[in-house]
Amino acid sequence: MNDQDHLKPLLESLRESAVERDHAGGHAAREKALLREHGLLNLSIPREFGGEELPWPQIYRIVRRVAGVDSALGHVLAFHHLQIATVLIYGNPAQKRRWLGDTVRHGYWWGNAMNPLDTRLVASEGAGGFRLNGAKGFCSGTTGSYFMTLSALHQDSGKVMLGVVPTVQDGIRILDDWDPIGQRQTDSNSVEFTDVPLPEDSILRAHYAEQTAFHTLRTCFAQLVLVNLYVGIASGALDEARRYALSQARPWVHAGAASVADDPLVVQRFAEMHVQVAAATALADRAGDLLEKAYVRGPELDAQTRGEVAVAIAEAKVLAHRAGLYASQELFEVVGARGAKAALGFDRFWRNVRTHTLHDPLDYKLQVLGKWALLGETPSPTLYN
Amino acid sequence: MNDQDHLKPLLESLRESAVERDHAGGHAAREKALLREHGLLNLSIPREFGGEELPWPQIYRIVRRVAGVDSALGHVLAFHHLQIATVLIYGNPAQKRRWLGDTVRHGYWWGNAMNPLDTRLVASEGAGGFRLNGAKGFCSGTTGSYFMTLSALHQDSGKVMLGVVPTVQDGIRILDDWDPIGQRQTDSNSVEFTDVPLPEDSILRAHYAEQTAFHTLRTCFAQLVLVNLYVGIASGALDEARRYALSQARPWVHAGAASVADDPLVVQRFAEMHVQVAAATALADRAGDLLEKAYVRGPELDAQTRGEVAVAIAEAKVLAHRAGLYASQELFEVVGARGAKAALGFDRFWRNVRTHTLHDPLDYKLQVLGKWALLGETPSPTLYN
Amino acid sequence: MNDQDHLKPLLESLRESAVERDHAGGHAAREKALLREHGLLNLSIPREFGGEELPWPQIYRIVRRVAGVDSALGHVLAFHHLQIATVLIYGNPAQKRRWLGDTVRHGYWWGNAMNPLDTRLVASEGAGGFRLNGAKGFCSGTTGSYFMTLSALHQDSGKVMLGVVPTVQDGIRILDDWDPIGQRQTDSNSVEFTDVPLPEDSILRAHYAEQTAFHTLRTCFAQLVLVNLYVGIASGALDEARRYALSQARPWVHAGAASVADDPLVVQRFAEMHVQVAAATALADRAGDLLEKAYVRGPELDAQTRGEVAVAIAEAKVLAHRAGLYASQELFEVVGARGAKAALGFDRFWRNVRTHTLHDPLDYKLQVLGKWALLGETPSPTLYN
Amino acid sequence: MNDQDHLKPLLESLRESAVERDHAGGHAAREKALLREHGLLNLSIPREFGGEELPWPQIYRIVRRVAGVDSALGHVLAFHHLQIATVLIYGNPAQKRRWLGDTVRHGYWWGNAMNPLDTRLVASEGAGGFRLNGAKGFCSGTTGSYFMTLSALHQDSGKVMLGVVPTVQDGIRILDDWDPIGQRQTDSNSVEFTDVPLPEDSILRAHYAEQTAFHTLRTCFAQLVLVNLYVGIASGALDEARRYALSQARPWVHAGAASVADDPLVVQRFAEMHVQVAAATALADRAGDLLEKAYVRGPELDAQTRGEVAVAIAEAKVLAHRAGLYASQELFEVVGARGAKAALGFDRFWRNVRTHTLHDPLDYKLQVLGKWALLGETPSPTLYN
Repeated sequence: MNDQDHLKPLLESLRESAVERDHAGGHAAREKALLREHGLLNLSIPREFGGEELPWPQIYRIVRRVAGVDSALGHVLAFHHLQIATVLIYGNPAQKRRWLGDTVRHGYWWGNAMNPLDTRLVASEGAGGFRLNGAKGFCSGTTGSYFMTLSALHQDSGKVMLGVVPTVQDGIRILDDWDPIGQRQTDSNSVEFTDVPLPEDSILRAHYAEQTAFHTLRTCFAQLVLVNLYVGIASGALDEARRYALSQARPWVHAGAASVADDPLVVQRFAEMHVQVAAATALADRAGDLLEKAYVRGPELDAQTRGEVAVAIAEAKVLAHRAGLYASQELFEVVGARGAKAALGFDRFWRNVRTHTLHDPLDYKLQVLGKWALLGETPSPTLYN
Repeated sequence: MNDQDHLKPLLESLRESAVERDHAGGHAAREKALLREHGLLNLSIPREFGGEELPWPQIYRIVRRVAGVDSALGHVLAFHHLQIATVLIYGNPAQKRRWLGDTVRHGYWWGNAMNPLDTRLVASEGAGGFRLNGAKGFCSGTTGSYFMTLSALHQDSGKVMLGVVPTVQDGIRILDDWDPIGQRQTDSNSVEFTDVPLPEDSILRAHYAEQTAFHTLRTCFAQLVLVNLYVGIASGALDEARRYALSQARPWVHAGAASVADDPLVVQRFAEMHVQVAAATALADRAGDLLEKAYVRGPELDAQTRGEVAVAIAEAKVLAHRAGLYASQELFEVVGARGAKAALGFDRFWRNVRTHTLHDPLDYKLQVLGKWALLGETPSPTLYN
Repeated sequence: MNDQDHLKPLLESLRESAVERDHAGGHAAREKALLREHGLLNLSIPREFGGEELPWPQIYRIVRRVAGVDSALGHVLAFHHLQIATVLIYGNPAQKRRWLGDTVRHGYWWGNAMNPLDTRLVASEGAGGFRLNGAKGFCSGTTGSYFMTLSALHQDSGKVMLGVVPTVQDGIRILDDWDPIGQRQTDSNSVEFTDVPLPEDSILRAHYAEQTAFHTLRTCFAQLVLVNLYVGIASGALDEARRYALSQARPWVHAGAASVADDPLVVQRFAEMHVQVAAATALADRAGDLLEKAYVRGPELDAQTRGEVAVAIAEAKVLAHRAGLYASQELFEVVGARGAKAALGFDRFWRNVRTHTLHDPLDYKLQVLGKWALLGETPSPTLYN
Repeated sequence: MNDQDHLKPLLESLRESAVERDHAGGHAAREKALLREHGLLNLSIPREFGGEELPWPQIYRIVRRVAGVDSALGHVLAFHHLQIATVLIYGNPAQKRRWLGDTVRHGYWWGNAMNPLDTRLVASEGAGGFRLNGAKGFCSGTTGSYFMTLSALHQDSGKVMLGVVPTVQDGIRILDDWDPIGQRQTDSNSVEFTDVPLPEDSILRAHYAEQTAFHTLRTCFAQLVLVNLYVGIASGALDEARRYALSQARPWVHAGAASVADDPLVVQRFAEMHVQVAAATALADRAGDLLEKAYVRGPELDAQTRGEVAVAIAEAKVLAHRAGLYASQELFEVVGARGAKAALGFDRFWRNVRTHTLHDPLDYKLQVLGKWALLGETPSPTLYN
């Protein structure tokens, strides 16, 4: 996996079917199999369990490239690694060995039921552990997964606990209620739990456990996934614009230009897209480097350093959010009227990024940055910062 | 028709089915019948032929309101009146009486085959007039129309001539090739012509006729249709945002606000949308007033006055283009994550305006305005200015 | 005064000395005399008192033109008329006759001590009226004026009262403390009052008087002054840019253009400036028309109509604020490096508009508009809305 | 010099006098002496000649910090090092040893007469070298310098040659014609040359010499100076805004906030400034790293790598240009009306960056980036890319 060029045929294959699959929605079983075959499920798993153990910045760059051609699959891939990060952050040595070893051996996908704003899932104490009842919405990647991470409210204390369960089992029912305007193949369905066992040895974080600064890095990993998906979409939109402009587009009838590339006004629009993509990419890379440095410090990580990682990610997120919306909209200005043909599917970039950028509001990311700029305060660790 | 509030039930009815029809695409026969039943086909027709003879600014405001709930139907309605304007500008008294009288009597819709960039349709001289052969693309509103205006190249001279033919006749075949990402029910299909007669008395403009400044107002009418469609979409997006924000949306979990309307950051976003819509509306109204004044001057109209109308429309078009894209994208920031549900269809505003704003490039509208600002030059009358 | 072209030589004269006077700051006695000589002090005064009684939109357009060449003098002129509007709104028939008649007869300038945020000036009851003690800041136009309007706190009730006093009298001392980065000749100094008499017949509004909707139009008049000053500055910056571009500027060495006007990238920048100026101008005119309509309704004016005037002015203010900053900054992009020469004084537009746009914060104007857009609420009449 | 905190007292001292010196203009002899005393003239000089030999990214960061408090002195300092870079790139071993050794020993400042658009300076062949006659404009830093680099046209061939001469000598006359709206203490005066000798051993580049990719790095060094000055100004404006907001500014009367920092709308504006500064800083750092890598490759440097450095610098320049203008204008929105007091001198940031950003047009930097984005072309080495 050191040579990202191995990805080219995979990316081309995803790109070719992306328009059709965006239209159809639903589960991308074939494409998820392709990602697995290309070894992309092992990128974040430590070498001692048979994985690639790539540095996180490199993993995020791969996510970005996948998102450039298909941001729904980029999301599914990134969320798989986010769940692995969750195990690496919260898991004990036995859990890591068991789950991650199995993941490598069998090529398992990970899903999740972690949506923090949805508090319907409850864990009640029982023999040898807990029983899970209730539901979770927005469980991206759960369809077709073998394991899933989950968060539940501990019944007696009302506090949050985290665990891992096999996805396919009696008592777990994945609904088919994900029908959004974009990111249509992320399988972000609701999941219902009926008396699902969560044994002691599958608890990642007990309801009474302290959260360390290191634990709260999980939010950073999650937010940086969003950043890189947005950057990937922006970059993918620019790629399509370039490809179409060079091969299909005609200069405007009053442009007096022999080709689109000879029209300085079109060149200017490419420049603006490029500048935004370049800036968002640079900030995403910078945030990735800081996250990696914080991550390798492990449980020793202090709150201030963690806070500065969160600030760097927030900076990147603001730029990536805007670059994604900008490039996916601007794409049309540079390809011209024929670019609105449904068969080209050029609107998918905008629908994808518009859907995904609603995850948590830009305004509150800006509030975090404003307080940092004005008062030097890093954000309190939350489920969004 | 003086009281626009008569339109409310019609608009509500269009709005209710808009999401579904956007998804389905194709021909909106039932809704076009509704528009006819509400008398909207007669707005621009002179009283002497039984029409409403509303001033154009008032017609454009009605178009805007229709576009606010369904911009495809807004387009079809506006293009109907654009063809009537074409008859009013180019037609001789007998033509006006015949075609417009029939239109009122029978409730006819008008379509067109006027796309100036498509030069495939040729008129060859024959007995008592011409024979039409060839094709035209982007013939908005032609499906379901009784009459259509058309432009064709005069075979011998290569010059453009304009005429009117009944849509339903042997030799005219409407394809089903309009499948765009937005404006899906404008019926902008291609039309094929095989040996279709164009009798002498149906020629609106002969190939040898001089173009007067008054004639070139047709482009102004067409461009102002676009302006008002964009403004309508912007305004409709803002309406939906308001409706959803007040009835469904929840304040962000970290906003510390009792309702969305209590969050100053959300209020600020509504303000920005409103400011853009208000400015685009004001410029569209101003351009409409100038167009009306120029139109009533009739054949006496001078080139300078016509040029200043074109400048005012270009100014409005730049603002409307941007307001449309802005509001239809920003809508999502104020409704939050649940607004991405496909069933809400909130993305239709952006897809509609994104499709329609590609009609002719913003950059070349800006070039016109830049030359006006810098050199005081009004644009030469073209098919886009 | 019907023919604004009479203003051309005056404007040219102001323009010629503007750079030097901006540098020097202080009082523009000579230029204020010029404005008087051109009859500009009588524009708003009713015919029955010997004035021009121009409709307000026309007065604001004249203010705009003056502001285009010298926004400090535009301010002084506009504030003169704002004080006359204050007399027209609050004054009784005798007061109007006396003060406005004198103004026309003698060519008096009006100043003010009305700054609502400065509550230091107190009126204590005495024989035949009140005695004024204390001070006011930002008393624009007071230097060189004959009359001044003022607001003071009624000593016993703490409520606000308004009155008129002659500026030149014992007990009134105008400081020389106005030294800003822009708008340097508005004479917005502080004024100290020591035992200054305010006789009964000079009270414009008693401390116990009810505020009607009509009274609160004064704020609308004041805010619309700001709007038109900003529009004037934007427009003046664009004028200078055009003049310099056509006469002095050279195309960029790599532009491959024979002149600046041949470079499409420069033309594009002129277009953007023009679009902003055109939109702000249209909204300023629209707000002026609405204000005039509300004003002529007099004391019958209802709160809702007044509120809608305030909204229209707020819309115009947002656009004018931005157009002013944009055009005054962008001016430099189109004139190139030589435009930074101090002798040209091109930075005065930005310094002027930057200073003046701080009068009250844009963000709170947006809050007003956001509440209007979201909730349909017009702003409560305040000293800023 | 490893510890930049040594700079704090120096920066504070420059900041304290910056407003006054901006007003006065002219030569900052005392402050240039301070920079020398703090060892800042040796940063770029190789250790073998007694210098610090800091990596360039570190030097640029110091320039940025100086520019944050005084961008004119930041410019003078950066241009000193740019001339040293010129010697390092073009000089032979003897020249480097002689000039750079002397520079360290005596604390010499370097100036320049290199303005490529000014072709008035001519070198004619004479005994033992050349004689220089003519003039150059915009010779930043020349006043008070000991050495100056210069470019002249070789009389016979019309080709450019580069050399070094002592500044203080008969035949060299520095005019006093630098009077701009900003960057007032950069001493960018014109210099006249009358029969000034340029001996053979002082020629840096002969008129017949080939330009290698390595040689053309000089333009990259120069452009990256501009980038870092803009970033420094943006950052300095944000610093002043923060300082004033926390110590002096009052919340708006209708904000309902106890302090400026409690107003979410103000916090949002700080966020926007911060985001722009952070992005420009990241891209400037990235470009600096790439430039350093290219520089250390020396004469082996290939054209493609050099081109990619130029692209990275162009990306950074676009962001820095905009961040500088944005932050220096926005500063006023967050400090409020009292911030317009001339004594605070808050307008100097905008005047400085506005002046300096006119060096070469943004539009042509964007054309470079557009061609890179669309066609993958790196810019041809010129005096601006």
